[in-house]
Amino acid sequence: MQTRSEETRAHILKAALRRFANHGYSAASVDEICAEAGVSKGAFYHHFPSKQALFLELLNEWLDTIDAGFEAARKDSVPETLRAFTEMLPGIFAAADGRLPMFMEFWLQASRDETIWQATVAPYQRYQQFFTLLVEQGQAEGSLRAELDAGSAAKAIVGLAVGLLLQGLLTAEADWQKTARVSMEVLLNGLMK
Amino acid sequence: MQTRSEETRAHILKAALRRFANHGYSAASVDEICAEAGVSKGAFYHHFPSKQALFLELLNEWLDTIDAGFEAARKDSVPETLRAFTEMLPGIFAAADGRLPMFMEFWLQASRDETIWQATVAPYQRYQQFFTLLVEQGQAEGSLRAELDAGSAAKAIVGLAVGLLLQGLLTAEADWQKTARVSMEVLLNGLMK
Repeated sequence: MQTRSEETRAHILKAALRRFANHGYSAASVDEICAEAGVSKGAFYHHFPSKQALFLELLNEWLDTIDAGFEAARKDSVPETLRAFTEMLPGIFAAADGRLPMFMEFWLQASRDETIWQATVAPYQRYQQFFTLLVEQGQAEGSLRAELDAGSAAKAIVGLAVGLLLQGLLTAEADWQKTARVSMEVLLNGLMK
Repeated sequence: MQTRSEETRAHILKAALRRFANHGYSAASVDEICAEAGVSKGAFYHHFPSKQALFLELLNEWLDTIDAGFEAARKDSVPETLRAFTEMLPGIFAAADGRLPMFMEFWLQASRDETIWQATVAPYQRYQQFFTLLVEQGQAEGSLRAELDAGSAAKAIVGLAVGLLLQGLLTAEADWQKTARVSMEVLLNGLMK
């Protein structure tokens, strides 16, 4: 059972998510979030030092979901693992639950603000590193081409995933999963021996 | 020689680009753009019916540069053409000249606003179509795998390009061109017979 304090925290997160998703991150004020959550400003600042901290919590919740999914989807070979990850894309998208436009907005603000830059670029670099290791593993097991620079191949994978998520976000296309599957097959075909 | 009216128009576009790039599209008001350009509001509305029209002009200027570059970069085979396009990515990036964050911002607003949706998604669909035709041409000339769905392959190419532009925008990485080159080689390797 949730304690009252945990409940308040969950209410704030839910209200913030709704406001950010509908009005954007910059346009949503702490006052509005408090009003929507039905909590006092004191309660808000007891749980979150700033709007930015609240945002990062929403971002991290989503990233944790992705990480857990990645761990669960590991297969015996790297190509099979990459295929399993591709099948997860719609789920990752759904789990974002309206967060994506606000992540993009925040990411863009990071290009103008040094302090939020670090927090935003860090998870991105983490995935780059994660896929670099995975490509190296594929090269070691003999499934992926040994002459490829693992870091660059990892950036191609992350770049394609980000580009596909963005396309899914913006075109609201029915056959999005098919596109993701074909794209990954083409990329895999290029990566494999 | 520019007429006085053309000069005014160019001033407004330059001032708007500066304000949009530094403060974001939503935060920049027509009043501020007029002040920065040193023109009256009357002169502004003589040239542009709205801030949105001004924005679309900046977007189209950039897209025209890309289109002209694509036409000039065509080679004898589709794989060579795709390689030539990849070499153009840093130039496309530079020609955007601070416009990219604002395009992204606008794109995100499109996901909340039906009226700007059309204008924003249209160029995206144009590139998707452009690359579908290019893949079909590659299949006809025998350089690309015939069994690929051309539309999905085109989305993979556009997705990768968008993802790479975004990575370039956000990580300010020195070796960005190398990443683009390796990524395209991997993708080409997957597309080619």
